[in-house]
Amino acid sequence: MFNIALLGAGRIGQVHAVNITEHKETNLYAVVDPNPANAQALSERYHAQVRTINEVMGDPAVHAVLIASATDTHADLIELAAKNGKAIFCEKPVHLDIARVRDCLTVVEQQRVPLFVGFNRRYDPQFRRVKTLSEAGNIGKAESLLIVSRDPSPPPAEYVRVSGGMFRDMTIHDFDMARFIMGEEPVSVFAQGSNLVDPAIGQAGDIDTAFVVLKFASGAMATIVNSRRSGYGYDQRLELHGAGGVLSAGNIRENVVEQWTDDGCLAAKPEHFFLQRYQSAYVAEWNHFVEVLNGRVQPECTGLDGERALYLADKALESLVQGKAITL
Amino acid sequence: MFNIALLGAGRIGQVHAVNITEHKETNLYAVVDPNPANAQALSERYHAQVRTINEVMGDPAVHAVLIASATDTHADLIELAAKNGKAIFCEKPVHLDIARVRDCLTVVEQQRVPLFVGFNRRYDPQFRRVKTLSEAGNIGKAESLLIVSRDPSPPPAEYVRVSGGMFRDMTIHDFDMARFIMGEEPVSVFAQGSNLVDPAIGQAGDIDTAFVVLKFASGAMATIVNSRRSGYGYDQRLELHGAGGVLSAGNIRENVVEQWTDDGCLAAKPEHFFLQRYQSAYVAEWNHFVEVLNGRVQPECTGLDGERALYLADKALESLVQGKAITL
Amino acid sequence: MFNIALLGAGRIGQVHAVNITEHKETNLYAVVDPNPANAQALSERYHAQVRTINEVMGDPAVHAVLIASATDTHADLIELAAKNGKAIFCEKPVHLDIARVRDCLTVVEQQRVPLFVGFNRRYDPQFRRVKTLSEAGNIGKAESLLIVSRDPSPPPAEYVRVSGGMFRDMTIHDFDMARFIMGEEPVSVFAQGSNLVDPAIGQAGDIDTAFVVLKFASGAMATIVNSRRSGYGYDQRLELHGAGGVLSAGNIRENVVEQWTDDGCLAAKPEHFFLQRYQSAYVAEWNHFVEVLNGRVQPECTGLDGERALYLADKALESLVQGKAITL
Amino acid sequence: MFNIALLGAGRIGQVHAVNITEHKETNLYAVVDPNPANAQALSERYHAQVRTINEVMGDPAVHAVLIASATDTHADLIELAAKNGKAIFCEKPVHLDIARVRDCLTVVEQQRVPLFVGFNRRYDPQFRRVKTLSEAGNIGKAESLLIVSRDPSPPPAEYVRVSGGMFRDMTIHDFDMARFIMGEEPVSVFAQGSNLVDPAIGQAGDIDTAFVVLKFASGAMATIVNSRRSGYGYDQRLELHGAGGVLSAGNIRENVVEQWTDDGCLAAKPEHFFLQRYQSAYVAEWNHFVEVLNGRVQPECTGLDGERALYLADKALESLVQGKAITL
Repeated sequence: MFNIALLGAGRIGQVHAVNITEHKETNLYAVVDPNPANAQALSERYHAQVRTINEVMGDPAVHAVLIASATDTHADLIELAAKNGKAIFCEKPVHLDIARVRDCLTVVEQQRVPLFVGFNRRYDPQFRRVKTLSEAGNIGKAESLLIVSRDPSPPPAEYVRVSGGMFRDMTIHDFDMARFIMGEEPVSVFAQGSNLVDPAIGQAGDIDTAFVVLKFASGAMATIVNSRRSGYGYDQRLELHGAGGVLSAGNIRENVVEQWTDDGCLAAKPEHFFLQRYQSAYVAEWNHFVEVLNGRVQPECTGLDGERALYLADKALESLVQGKAITL
Repeated sequence: MFNIALLGAGRIGQVHAVNITEHKETNLYAVVDPNPANAQALSERYHAQVRTINEVMGDPAVHAVLIASATDTHADLIELAAKNGKAIFCEKPVHLDIARVRDCLTVVEQQRVPLFVGFNRRYDPQFRRVKTLSEAGNIGKAESLLIVSRDPSPPPAEYVRVSGGMFRDMTIHDFDMARFIMGEEPVSVFAQGSNLVDPAIGQAGDIDTAFVVLKFASGAMATIVNSRRSGYGYDQRLELHGAGGVLSAGNIRENVVEQWTDDGCLAAKPEHFFLQRYQSAYVAEWNHFVEVLNGRVQPECTGLDGERALYLADKALESLVQGKAITL
Repeated sequence: MFNIALLGAGRIGQVHAVNITEHKETNLYAVVDPNPANAQALSERYHAQVRTINEVMGDPAVHAVLIASATDTHADLIELAAKNGKAIFCEKPVHLDIARVRDCLTVVEQQRVPLFVGFNRRYDPQFRRVKTLSEAGNIGKAESLLIVSRDPSPPPAEYVRVSGGMFRDMTIHDFDMARFIMGEEPVSVFAQGSNLVDPAIGQAGDIDTAFVVLKFASGAMATIVNSRRSGYGYDQRLELHGAGGVLSAGNIRENVVEQWTDDGCLAAKPEHFFLQRYQSAYVAEWNHFVEVLNGRVQPECTGLDGERALYLADKALESLVQGKAITL
Repeated sequence: MFNIALLGAGRIGQVHAVNITEHKETNLYAVVDPNPANAQALSERYHAQVRTINEVMGDPAVHAVLIASATDTHADLIELAAKNGKAIFCEKPVHLDIARVRDCLTVVEQQRVPLFVGFNRRYDPQFRRVKTLSEAGNIGKAESLLIVSRDPSPPPAEYVRVSGGMFRDMTIHDFDMARFIMGEEPVSVFAQGSNLVDPAIGQAGDIDTAFVVLKFASGAMATIVNSRRSGYGYDQRLELHGAGGVLSAGNIRENVVEQWTDDGCLAAKPEHFFLQRYQSAYVAEWNHFVEVLNGRVQPECTGLDGERALYLADKALESLVQGKAITL
C-alpha cells in the first residue's frame, strides 16, 4: 500500500482523491492546501490527515505526491518532492516558461525519482483505442490526424490573462495528443487564430479560436481545431486517417435517449466538460502511476513530454504572430 | 423492347410510368384510366397512347399490363389480361376476398401467363440486403424477426371502411416480408390490437395499432409492430436475429444534416412515406419483371404469395376476435 | 450515517458493497455469507465486520440489510429482518412462488419496516429519462411500448432448472419495466416461446426465446422481445410510442471508436452484461434507498411491485401453455 | 420547352443527359462528341440528334449548350456559344489558367448570355441545408468551417500530370464551398501538403494530401482536409460552427443495414464516388439552370465564382511553396 500526499484539494484534487482511495494499492495519506476548508473537507471524507508541505516532504511514510495545486507552484513542488525522494504525479503543465521547465527536469533527473506528467487524455479509453488499433495495423500507415477540441464555454478573462495563452493552456493537450497518436515528432507548425467568442479575451491579448497544422518528418500531417466555446458541450473528437482507412473517436453523449417527433430526432449533447468526459481517463492514469510506483513500468508520459508540448505551443504562437510555418 | 400498358394513372401508376420509361427494355405504350385527365397527363409526358381496356387487351403489340387501378378491379383485370395472353404485373392485393383470389389464380394458371404481384418491399435494397446477408450465413440460423411498420398518419375513415381492415390493408406487407425474410411458412399467428389513433377508425370497425406474433415450423418466431400513425414520418425497420448476431435495417432519414446546440442534437426524420422510402424498390421490382418478360427468370413474388399473405391477414383477424393463437 | 449489513457477498453483493461505501451517508458495517472466503474478501476491502445472520439481526447498530443472497433465501431473510425492525433492500425476486411472496409481504406490512425490491432497471438513467420525458408530455399520450431484452449468452442448464423458468427469471424485469413506463396495469397477457438457443434448456423444460404481448386498460399495448442469447452483447433497448412521436433508449456501446475501411464501418458492441450496463442504475437505486432510510420518501419499488411482476410471469407461462391471451 | 445541345457524351455528359430528359421543360436536342460511338449511344437512348459543334452553334433551335467536354476545351466552347447567343452551362473549371478565364469571362459579359459554372456541390441538398439553416440563424454567427473531402482512390499519374495540380483539380471544389457557405471572401490562405498516397503523384510534381487554412475578413476561419485516397469510399463532410452550435453534414452511406455480431457492429461505407454521392445535386443544379433559361433568376454560380475558386487554388499553391500564409 502506497501512501499518497495530495497537494491541492480543489476541483481536480477531488477527482484524484477518489481515485487514490478506490485503488486497492494506494491510500490517501495526507492533504495539503492553502485553503484550510478544502483540505479539511477532503481529509474528513477520505480519512486522510491535513498537513503542511514541509510535514509531507519530511515524512518518510509518504511514498508519492500528487501535485494538483496552482500552475505556478508545480515546478517548485516537483523540485522539492524530488529532493525529498518522493515519486511525483504532476498535473500538466510543469510550468508555462520553458526554461523553468528545463531547469526543473534537470533536478528531477539528478534525483532519479519517477515523474509522471498528467496528460490525462492519453488515458482516455477512446483515444487510446485509436492508437492501439492503429499500431495493430488496422488502417495501415497513419497519414493524417484531425483533432477537434472545443470547450463548452469560454473561461473568464481573468483566467485567460494568467493562462499563458490559448496554445499553452488549451492546445497543449492537443499537441501532446498529436505526438502520442502519431508516434513521431513534428517538423513544422503553422497556426491561425481569431478572437471571435469573447471580446474580453481579445483585450487580454489572446485568441479563442484556432486552427493548427503540424507536419511530421515522415510527411504525415495533423490539424487541430480549437475553440473556447462550442455551444453544445465539450467537443472532443479525433480521426486518424491511414493508408487503409480511418479510425475515429467521436463524442460521448450525456445519454442515449432519442426523441423522434415531427420536428425530427432529438438526441443528447456531448458530456459537459472534462470532469465528466475524462472520468475514466483519470482512473486509468492513476492505475498507470501505481504501476510506476511498483517499479513495473517507467512513466509513459514524462517531463520531457510536458516540455515538448510546451515547445510546440510556443512555436505555434510564433507562427501566429509571423504568419508562416515555423520549422522545428 | 416490350410494350407496356399501364392500367391506372393515379399516384402509384405515375411511379411506374417513370420506371417503365427509364428502363431501356420497356416502353410505356398505352395508358388506361377511367379519369381521362389522368390518362391524358401521363400519355403526354411519356409519349404514350390513351386507350380503353378493350383496346389494350385486343392489341397484339402489348406485351404486358401493369395493373395499378383500384383494388376491387385487380382480379377482373388479371383474368382479362391472362385470357388475352398478356404478362401481368399487379399491385397488391389480388383481391380482399381469398376465395376470389383463388379463382383468379386458377385462371392465370390455366392461361400460363406470368403473374408478378407487387410486394414492393421485397425489392427494397435494405431489406433485401438483410435477406442476402442472412442467407450468406453472416448471423447463423435466423431465429427471430422484428418488423416495425408505422405509417406517418392515419388514412381517412372512408378509406378504412373499404380497405379490408388493417391486417389486409397494411399488415399484409409485413406478413409477406416475414415469409420472405424467414424463408418458411408460419404455423401459428396471434394478433392483439387497439383503436388508439382515430376514433373514426374504431367507428368504422377497425383497429389502428397492432402487435402480431408468428411462429414458424422450425420454432423461429416473428413479431410485427404496426400503427396507422407514427408522429415522426414513415417508420419502416426490421431486425433479424440469428444464432450469431443480428442484421438490422433502420430508417432512411430525409437528410444527414445534424444541428448540435445547447438543446441537444437535432437530426432529420425518416423519409415521409412509401413513395419516397420505396422509390428504389419500385425501380428494382420493375427490373425483375423485365427479367421475367425476357424469360430469364420466373416471378419471385407470385399470386400464391399474395394469397398466403392474405390468408395470414384473415387468420390474424380471427386471432384478434378470439383472443388466441390460430394454428395454420 | 447508516450502518448496512450486506447479506450475500457474491457477484451482485460486491457491486452493492462499493456503492454502500461510496455513499456519504452509508457505511458497510457487516458482511454475511455462507462462504467465509467471500465474506472475508469484502470485509477486508471495505473495513467491514464478518458476521452471522443472527449477529446482524440482533445488533441494534444495524439500520438496514441488503439482501443479495441466493433467491430461495430472500423471503426468509426479509421476514427475519422485518421482525428485527431493519429496513430492507432486497434483490429481486422476493420468491419464485407467489403465495410465499404474499405471506412474506404480510409480515413486512405488520412490522411496518420499509422494503425496497431491487428492480434495478427502473434506475437506469436511460429508461428513467424515457419515463420522465413521456410524463412531461413530449410525445403525447403513451400508446405502445417495445422492450428488447436479450442476454449475451445463455446460462447453464443447471441454473435454468432452478431459475423458475424464463418468464420468472428474465422477463420479470421487463414486466416490471412495462408497468413502470406505462404507469398502468395490464389487463391481458399473451406469450409465445421457443427453445432455439440451447437444447439443454429445452430438456430442462424451459424456453430461451420469447415474444410477449401485453394489453393495458387504456387500450395501450406493450411487446417484449426476449432471448437468452444475442451473439453481440447485452441488448437492452426500449421504445415508447405516443400520439406525437417516440422516445427510444438504445444500447450503450463499449466504446465510441469507429473503424472505416473498405469492409465498411466497424463500431463497438453493446456493453457486455448487466454489471456494466446497469452500473449507474445500481448507484441510483442505492441513492433512492438512502432517501428511504432518511424517511424522506417511501420506497418507489415495493414488495407489491415484485408480486405484480411475478404474477405477470405466472400468467405469461399460462398463456404459453394454453396458446391464448390470459385475461388478468 | 428548351432545346439543349450536350457537348461531351462521356461519363459526366451521361449524367446530364438523363437530367435534361427528365426535366419537363428541357429536351435533349443534340449531342456532340469527338468520339462517334459516345454520341451515338446517347442520341439513341434519348432520341437526340448527333451533330457537330458548328451545326449546333449555327442552329437557332438550340437554346442552350451544356459543356461537359475535356477541360481544355471549356473556355473556347464558352466563347463560341456566347458569340452564338446560346445560354451556357459549363462544368467546372472554365480553364486552369486564370488569365484565360478572365479573357473568356470578358467575352461572355460582352455577349450578355447567361453562364452557369457547375460547382455541383453547392446543389447537394445536405450542404445547401447547412447554409439554409445557418442563414436562418439556427447557430448564430458562422465562425468556423471544417470541410473534409477525400476521394476513394487516387487518379492515375497521367491524369494528375494534366490536372493542374491537386489545388486546381480537387480543392477548387472546397474553395468554392467555403465561399458559398461562409458568404464572404477569404483574406488569407495557408496550405500544407504531402505526397503520401502514390509516389507516382509525387513524381508528377504534385501532392495527394493537403490541409488548407483560410481566414476571412470577419475573423471567421475555415479549414479543408483533402486526400486523394480514403480507403473507405468518398468522404464528403462539412461542419459549420457558429456562436450557438454546429451544423454538420455527414456522409451518406451505401445502405442502412447493420450487422451486429461478436466482432462489433458493421455498417456500410459512404457512397462510392461523386456520381452516386452528388446524383441529386446534378438534378438540382439543372433545375436551377432551367430557372435561368426561363429568365426567372440569374445564375447563382457564375464565371466569377469559377475565377475566385481558381484564384484561391493558385494562392494555396503559392503558400505551399513558400511555407507561409498568403494575404489575398
